Amino acid sequence: MLHESAMTQALELAFSGVRGANPLVGALLVSAQGEVLAQGHHRGAGTFHAERAALANFFAHHPAGVDLSSATLYSTLEPCRHQGRQPACTQLIIEAGIGRVVHGASDPTSNGGGAAVLQRAGIEVLSSVLREECEALNHRWTAAQEQHRPFVTVHLAQTLDARIAAADGTSQWITSQASREHTHRVRSRADAILVGTNTVAVDDPRLTARTPAGDLTQRQPLRVVMGLTPVPKRCKLTQALPEGEGWVQLRTRDPLEALQELAQTTHGGYPVKHVLVEGGQSVLSAFFAAGLVDEVFAYHAPLLLGAGTASIGDIGVTTLREAPRFALDPAESGPVQIMDSDVCVHLQPKGDTCSPES
Amino acid sequence: MLHESAMTQALELAFSGVRGANPLVGALLVSAQGEVLAQGHHRGAGTFHAERAALANFFAHHPAGVDLSSATLYSTLEPCRHQGRQPACTQLIIEAGIGRVVHGASDPTSNGGGAAVLQRAGIEVLSSVLREECEALNHRWTAAQEQHRPFVTVHLAQTLDARIAAADGTSQWITSQASREHTHRVRSRADAILVGTNTVAVDDPRLTARTPAGDLTQRQPLRVVMGLTPVPKRCKLTQALPEGEGWVQLRTRDPLEALQELAQTTHGGYPVKHVLVEGGQSVLSAFFAAGLVDEVFAYHAPLLLGAGTASIGDIGVTTLREAPRFALDPAESGPVQIMDSDVCVHLQPKGDTCSPES
Repeated sequence: MLHESAMTQALELAFSGVRGANPLVGALLVSAQGEVLAQGHHRGAGTFHAERAALANFFAHHPAGVDLSSATLYSTLEPCRHQGRQPACTQLIIEAGIGRVVHGASDPTSNGGGAAVLQRAGIEVLSSVLREECEALNHRWTAAQEQHRPFVTVHLAQTLDARIAAADGTSQWITSQASREHTHRVRSRADAILVGTNTVAVDDPRLTARTPAGDLTQRQPLRVVMGLTPVPKRCKLTQALPEGEGWVQLRTRDPLEALQELAQTTHGGYPVKHVLVEGGQSVLSAFFAAGLVDEVFAYHAPLLLGAGTASIGDIGVTTLREAPRFALDPAESGPVQIMDSDVCVHLQPKGDTCSPES
Repeated sequence: MLHESAMTQALELAFSGVRGANPLVGALLVSAQGEVLAQGHHRGAGTFHAERAALANFFAHHPAGVDLSSATLYSTLEPCRHQGRQPACTQLIIEAGIGRVVHGASDPTSNGGGAAVLQRAGIEVLSSVLREECEALNHRWTAAQEQHRPFVTVHLAQTLDARIAAADGTSQWITSQASREHTHRVRSRADAILVGTNTVAVDDPRLTARTPAGDLTQRQPLRVVMGLTPVPKRCKLTQALPEGEGWVQLRTRDPLEALQELAQTTHGGYPVKHVLVEGGQSVLSAFFAAGLVDEVFAYHAPLLLGAGTASIGDIGVTTLREAPRFALDPAESGPVQIMDSDVCVHLQPKGDTCSPES
């Protein structure tokens, strides 16, 4: 099997993952005869890395001592060498006795250097196979790392004419039950949910992650309010708890400042690496204007308001060629999902984007 | 084969057609043993009716004199009895020697009464099988007939934040090449394209139907300008021709008045039965506010403007529960199509809607 062909399969696997705190990664274990022995992909923070997932899938059907010295492990990203929430992939690869590792992108973070670790252990390492595609897979995640800020997912839950509330302020519910359930799934994997002070004052949201039955999910994101206006004494978001206990206020109107402050914040013992920005108009516009949106879920609900609050306000664009452009994101469940009556479009900023076909 | 099962298949066939001047219709020819002998659906004005399509598909593989006296023809709509652009289906059914006809909806137009014609010819007729589903299939087409007006398709070609032009008026091109090609296909099957006087003044559109290569398609719709402001002497739409030669102005701001005037207009020898409303904001808002939109193609282009012209302005809605609601339309190519970078959502007004699953 050609390296490029195996790496293309690993890329396709990577796209099954979810964007957020961690990059998308796919891995493939291939025998000397070119047979695919196992495959794996990363399913998001707190779950197996792709290399470990592939090895676990292999050892689910093979005894521990089997000879893998002639096998190759393909990974879209250089295997990690640091123990975090998960064991170091380099250690697992060495222990499995794998003879060769082929990877696409190098790890741009402090976690890089796994290739050298493997080589010192006597493993043959080939790097930069389909490097551009493998880098493009996570171009926004890499940008977030370089800016020392969390990865930003934005929700646009809007009408066909891009309104998020009617003229009288009513907004519950614009989107369908299925769209709201999807939102709660994204909330439950985010480290933090961020809204503006105005949203708290007007909508009084709970900002919890809940199951379709209405119960709290096991993992609850940090609830974050951004802006200068004080948070009301009584509101569902604070649950009458003092600041720092499940919620914080970031007293700034600058999105980058807010994100860098969040990056210094821990929640549940881990730093905030993935934030879901839910609204309202001022906050959404500020993040888009600053180019600090890494992923968009746009829920288009099939109704019209004609007036009321637009989802996005001034972002400093006056002519068409200045408009920030996005690309359909094939990751997770694909670029388009029908959610009851709504259509959810999954987007990433246009740039060095990568799709499974490329 | 149960009647309901055959009619469900006919309904699924019907959804392959396009909405417009004619209703969606599906037909199935079934033997006494329950074998499907042929199927057909209507592909739009000027093409075979569904019953004729099914018969043509059958006779493409069978000699003309074959005995169909024990066969049943299922049709979602009562077969027509009048010769229009196409021969009367009743006549074709009688000539084919078909023994039984089962239909769903009765024809609500002056063309109705086909069932009685068939019965007088000695054919067994069973009506109202899955009547509700068959009526729901074309509920908006029927409404248009009852209001003596053309069927109205609306195009919304907008950004992610539902803008149709930037602050400086630039709008070419918001949507992708594939979206624009789809628009031209819809144009080429419409009888008329309608825009407001402001759109003519600002954008100076040609409003012709063109092939991807830029050539004019064989069939050109009537170009219609709606509004009180005079059309500029020199503009691409009139092509320097006097009114009545390929274009007309409807001097009203009332959409129903405009449509009823159009219904009295002929183009290429036939009355205008299908109009494509393309914009701009005032015209679109007026049609939506009046409840006179039968079908929507919403092209969501993945870019943001934040300012500029909204696709829809005031439609008299102040609170969420008054918002006009739409439903995904499974007809034609399905409710959602990816068109290059854009997502096109196909909608119909919510009401007695029908989907292939129902």
